[in-house]
Amino acid sequence: MAKFVIGLDLGGTKIATCVMDAEGEIIKKITLPTLANEGPEAVISRMKKSVYDAIKMSDISKEDILAIGVGAPGPLDSERGLIKNSPNLPGWIKIPLRDVLHKEFKVPLALENDANAAALGEYFYGSGRGIKNFMYITISTGIGGGVVIDGKLLKGANGNAVEIGHTTINFGGPRCGCGNIGCWEAYASGTALARFAREGIRSGKKTIIRDIAGDEDSIKGEHVFAAAKQGDEFAKELVDQEGFYLGVGLANMANSFNPDCIAIGGGVSHQWDLFYDKMIYTMRERGLKANVDNLKVVKAALGPEVGVMGAAAVALRLLK
Amino acid sequence: MAKFVIGLDLGGTKIATCVMDAEGEIIKKITLPTLANEGPEAVISRMKKSVYDAIKMSDISKEDILAIGVGAPGPLDSERGLIKNSPNLPGWIKIPLRDVLHKEFKVPLALENDANAAALGEYFYGSGRGIKNFMYITISTGIGGGVVIDGKLLKGANGNAVEIGHTTINFGGPRCGCGNIGCWEAYASGTALARFAREGIRSGKKTIIRDIAGDEDSIKGEHVFAAAKQGDEFAKELVDQEGFYLGVGLANMANSFNPDCIAIGGGVSHQWDLFYDKMIYTMRERGLKANVDNLKVVKAALGPEVGVMGAAAVALRLLK
Repeated sequence: MAKFVIGLDLGGTKIATCVMDAEGEIIKKITLPTLANEGPEAVISRMKKSVYDAIKMSDISKEDILAIGVGAPGPLDSERGLIKNSPNLPGWIKIPLRDVLHKEFKVPLALENDANAAALGEYFYGSGRGIKNFMYITISTGIGGGVVIDGKLLKGANGNAVEIGHTTINFGGPRCGCGNIGCWEAYASGTALARFAREGIRSGKKTIIRDIAGDEDSIKGEHVFAAAKQGDEFAKELVDQEGFYLGVGLANMANSFNPDCIAIGGGVSHQWDLFYDKMIYTMRERGLKANVDNLKVVKAALGPEVGVMGAAAVALRLLK
Repeated sequence: MAKFVIGLDLGGTKIATCVMDAEGEIIKKITLPTLANEGPEAVISRMKKSVYDAIKMSDISKEDILAIGVGAPGPLDSERGLIKNSPNLPGWIKIPLRDVLHKEFKVPLALENDANAAALGEYFYGSGRGIKNFMYITISTGIGGGVVIDGKLLKGANGNAVEIGHTTINFGGPRCGCGNIGCWEAYASGTALARFAREGIRSGKKTIIRDIAGDEDSIKGEHVFAAAKQGDEFAKELVDQEGFYLGVGLANMANSFNPDCIAIGGGVSHQWDLFYDKMIYTMRERGLKANVDNLKVVKAALGPEVGVMGAAAVALRLLK
């Protein structure tokens, strides 16, 4: 009798669902739009549908599914299986997602913070394999991460440990989306990079960033990287600054979690070559020697599938 | 047959040694001066002597000792039992303390970062009892800490996880003793508090802090607290600022480790009443709701004995 689990990655824009076998092979993966603005009920219906669709397309039956793992944007309460008040899911306040899905599928179900689930995915199927103290960091519109020690997630009291994007690197800095001031995310996320570009343009910096983006409001981190590649001086300064801010945060991570290896994923990591040297130099200059000397920093091995693979890994863990 | 372990807490100024029974009761505790300037060999001799003295004064024999736990200033390599390059132990570079002591006593021996050992002590014998996700923070001349999850230390790759004093809270701030810039320790330790007082005095602030200390060079954190208690306006400002800096760091700890409870020990914590409100207000304002709403912050229950009790707890763990 074959065994399968479901990985369900609920994001602000899409729901990714996979069927995975006990060996960690993905049998089928599908995505549906989240359409978060339709509210929790509609989104949960779509999540259920996506599970049934994935089962059907894998030529198995509902009874073949032994567990479901769900990754969802934090903050949430992993212990109680609740989405609490996620900025990426408007209107989701204390939604008992785990219990609602359990009622439908009647199998063991676990809910994890999406970055934690992704860390588990990268640990089991990516660059973290066999690493005792592993850290995964995603740098895209926000910054998140997870720590896996001896194959186990560092979860904390309610599954919100390693909310590293919201650690302060300058207590007098810019306001972050979370309400805090001077978060790492407010300096080093793709969103922050775009903000710095816009601020520079408004203060009269000469740059081609706006032309690449189309207009000022459309500027994203990727446009800054594109301009830097074309030799734009201001964009190059911003990318250098990005490397610095990433290095400051990585030194904090090294000193806080003392990992053997940090894997960096997310959209910004694709441009790694442009800021790697500055990032690593800054980390080594600022972190404690004992914590950074033997620390490996690598690019994450899994691409956008890391989330759904991590969610499936969460499900597999339930069977052990 | 009774079972005993030895806890050995190597500090920059004193060596504390205890004999503990299997139930966690301290049978005897003694201290000797470290006299660190005499170098590793002399200090290690004194450590051995203190173990023999403690055994003798407990009316037991060397054969009754089943394990020894050592807490020592970081950074160190807990896996290999090495002191690496500790600022508090001049001249101690890659000293294989564990092996040297093992050769003498021939029992299981483990070396832990002192703050990690103290966290274990507070977890087993103090305010951390029964807490699933526990964090201990010591605020004195420096800032250190340890995290205990399900009774197990969060150690990281080489025992230097939770070097939280050296996490940056302002990347453009003052230089820290570790070489980094803007560390939490450079803002919120007792040493930093005294530095802010001296800087204020030099810039012409009217205050009684210097009179209390005797002269400017003798100013310590405790003098600032004493002046604040006497109503000194500048000292009160500094203490308020201390609460703010502590709160900034605590929010980072909440977001990084998501503990159920943080216990605060060390010299500065004795003045807790003077800055508690500002510290907690700042932490709650800056930390993620999911991470701070149910977080308890308490004063550590163990006093100066936390280090040596933690070292003994390290030894007891070796027997399990």
